[in-house]
Amino acid sequence: MVDSCGECASCLDGEQNYCERGATMTYNGRDKTGTTPRTFGGYSASIVVTEAFVVSVPSALDSAAAAPILCAGITMYSPLKHHRVGAGSRVGIAGFGGLGSMGVKLAKALGAEVTVITRSDAKFDEARRAGADHVLALSDRTGLKEHARSLDVILSTIPTSHDLAPYLGLLRRDGSYVILGAIEPLTTPIHGGILAGRRVNITGSMIGGMPETQEVLDFCASHGIASDIQLIGVDGINDAYERLSGGDPGYRFVIDMATLQPA
Amino acid sequence: MVDSCGECASCLDGEQNYCERGATMTYNGRDKTGTTPRTFGGYSASIVVTEAFVVSVPSALDSAAAAPILCAGITMYSPLKHHRVGAGSRVGIAGFGGLGSMGVKLAKALGAEVTVITRSDAKFDEARRAGADHVLALSDRTGLKEHARSLDVILSTIPTSHDLAPYLGLLRRDGSYVILGAIEPLTTPIHGGILAGRRVNITGSMIGGMPETQEVLDFCASHGIASDIQLIGVDGINDAYERLSGGDPGYRFVIDMATLQPA
Repeated sequence: MVDSCGECASCLDGEQNYCERGATMTYNGRDKTGTTPRTFGGYSASIVVTEAFVVSVPSALDSAAAAPILCAGITMYSPLKHHRVGAGSRVGIAGFGGLGSMGVKLAKALGAEVTVITRSDAKFDEARRAGADHVLALSDRTGLKEHARSLDVILSTIPTSHDLAPYLGLLRRDGSYVILGAIEPLTTPIHGGILAGRRVNITGSMIGGMPETQEVLDFCASHGIASDIQLIGVDGINDAYERLSGGDPGYRFVIDMATLQPA
Repeated sequence: MVDSCGECASCLDGEQNYCERGATMTYNGRDKTGTTPRTFGGYSASIVVTEAFVVSVPSALDSAAAAPILCAGITMYSPLKHHRVGAGSRVGIAGFGGLGSMGVKLAKALGAEVTVITRSDAKFDEARRAGADHVLALSDRTGLKEHARSLDVILSTIPTSHDLAPYLGLLRRDGSYVILGAIEPLTTPIHGGILAGRRVNITGSMIGGMPETQEVLDFCASHGIASDIQLIGVDGINDAYERLSGGDPGYRFVIDMATLQPA
């Protein structure tokens, strides 16, 4: 995000990400100044950003490891705060990749008990290393039953349409299933009776506002949280792309933009 | 409801309707006393109810017109209270039958501005008579656009699977679509992007707890709210059934149980 209207209720609440006239996104967004019709992204030597959309990266944070906090970090932090996660909360993280690992670290630092739900047994050790208290395989019916109705909120990082039923079963009365990844139609029918029977919520979230973005940077600095990253030069992009095509490796590639200039 | 466990978090919160061990429902519910395996419903000369599940009908209420408050009334009142509807709130009522008309009256009495959304133009006058400030046809694209992002909460009384998209478009940031009627799979895909883009909630609600049930009776008495009903004898059941098969008439049939005994 590099700009927003600054006048609607969302902007006035510091939630520029939900600007009612549409925030100007970094990539292919409509530039409000009218000098260029579209924004061209952050992979460049310089970028024009409205003053209020600049954040201060605390000196305690490594610049490269801080970069994904501005996307994966705030994407997980904002719903944790919105759903009032704190000491004693029970948080589920559905899917364990770059978003999931940040979610575990942030939720733990906020004082929550964290359960990772994953389709892949291969992610168990990684999730525990990130700090998860429990790791559940989606295929583990006994485990799902043991944890039934136990979670206050589940942050879903699953990037495609999926059946919500097994996840909703893990939520307590008034619990929320927060869709962060699947920004597409959910083709598996949702049972209205499950929503009514325990008053659970299906909702979503999208990055965060500017005050919250500064807050998550400061929070990460004071809690020693960094993204797991691999720093690459621009000439490593194709290799990284291939690696990502094989599935989320659980860390973020960060491109050192200084390498954009020929040596 | 005639009983619940009395010990789980829901029961201790006075939300016996969400009892974690399952409340004992009036019809075909499992009787916790074990003396009879199943409950046999309220259409009888007498009924056994656990003490805490008895409410006091205020003398200001007509007994017959009060009866549906214990179902349609509490079904609408509970989500209005849960979603903190009060003066200045903007409430939508999707579908206008017996539930919808109670919803309009209760939301108006709570101080809200009320918009009814209906598929049938025939319901317009009825909805306005009940007190609706605005009535929108689902087919009226201009009207839907004018009211886009205007509502805090929509109570959906639509009894079958339906496309949520036009309704979600009416909700403000953080608004909630509360499913009361469609306790079956919603087969039209829900777009995760709509949920993320404005952080709207899809949720449900089911009757109410005992304290809230007493509260809605008292509220109706003090605000002069009654259900629209037609009182019939047991010998009028077949006619009433046929009438209902043709669609919700917008009022409730109430059976005078005294007519169960032969004269």
